[in-house]
Amino acid sequence: MRMAELSDRSGVPVPTIKWWRREGLVPAGRATATNQAEYDQRHVARLRLLSVLREVADVPTAALRSVVDAIDDPDRSLHEVVGTAHAALDPGPHEPASEAASAAVDTLLDGLGWAVGVDAPARGSLARTVDALRTLGRTVEPDGLIAHARAAAAVAAAEVNAIDVDGRARDEVVADVVVGTILYEHVLTALRRLAQEHVSRERWTMPEA
Amino acid sequence: MRMAELSDRSGVPVPTIKWWRREGLVPAGRATATNQAEYDQRHVARLRLLSVLREVADVPTAALRSVVDAIDDPDRSLHEVVGTAHAALDPGPHEPASEAASAAVDTLLDGLGWAVGVDAPARGSLARTVDALRTLGRTVEPDGLIAHARAAAAVAAAEVNAIDVDGRARDEVVADVVVGTILYEHVLTALRRLAQEHVSRERWTMPEA
Repeated sequence: MRMAELSDRSGVPVPTIKWWRREGLVPAGRATATNQAEYDQRHVARLRLLSVLREVADVPTAALRSVVDAIDDPDRSLHEVVGTAHAALDPGPHEPASEAASAAVDTLLDGLGWAVGVDAPARGSLARTVDALRTLGRTVEPDGLIAHARAAAAVAAAEVNAIDVDGRARDEVVADVVVGTILYEHVLTALRRLAQEHVSRERWTMPEA
Repeated sequence: MRMAELSDRSGVPVPTIKWWRREGLVPAGRATATNQAEYDQRHVARLRLLSVLREVADVPTAALRSVVDAIDDPDRSLHEVVGTAHAALDPGPHEPASEAASAAVDTLLDGLGWAVGVDAPARGSLARTVDALRTLGRTVEPDGLIAHARAAAAVAAAEVNAIDVDGRARDEVVADVVVGTILYEHVLTALRRLAQEHVSRERWTMPEA
């Protein structure tokens, strides 16, 4: 297909396609004449992926590149792809968390028996949130995070188990891992808010003191 | 205390305090002389709350105002405060979700027995994510969201039950509800990423096909 049809089928405007093409986020089409190229279904899929990551998950262009690199690198393990997706979601830089909050996160992860790299951006994200809660006068003991940790473990296991690896092309599986990691975060966040509305209505429908 | 000490103790720069003061997000101090005012611990607490909501949760100024209005309105039930916090987290406007995705969300919520208002922003957020997954060729059946829904229900119940209402001043309880609703979303998101790293390492540490 030509550029106009590629834009139609992917839903991505032509100028954005050209920009992403120059940035190397989308592979070249097959040259058919000077200034003409032919694109195929793989280009449509790539554009839809980039478009969703940018629009739904606000992934910045530099992070889109690292996602694309992970998809295109045949030596990257699926575990490493998860790490790439996490980095894309949390590009930083951030203020460092306090030592006390970082230590609380270490204690929590040790207690849970989770093996997590020291550089995982979510360590810092959790520690900074613990700092924020402490700034607001809320003590956060590792025990107070157990309900959230159990829920997180349950969804992570369900998500990883839902990835079908057997007999599929590597780039499809990798795209599934990226999409799952990034979009199911939105699924979980939305469902938590919906559950909060339900639970809080049951408990608090009358005005409080 | 004077403005300089208020800034020191809250960690909020004087220009930001003056801006929030003009915007009505922070109550006036007690006037002690022309151009001088005395502030107290409640001003410190308010500034810390606003600062955390803006820096950790990226809540825009207009949404900070609605949070402040909810805290300051003695007739607002805690359930309504939860709704205000959700609106602050999801200010919109957004493209509407497809009818098919909205219907899938309705079916899921009916099946779960959750009572959720038709205007809850998280309904649209979930439906738009379902649309995004479908755009990428992933079918999303309500059954495929059950693990996430159960996890969401568990954390929502733990969060609501952790709010101590008895014998406390209303504005403190309301601030707890706002802080919990907004910051524990970050706690859950970070823990999910940490759990994903742990689970994916267990399953996928060797390079895949």
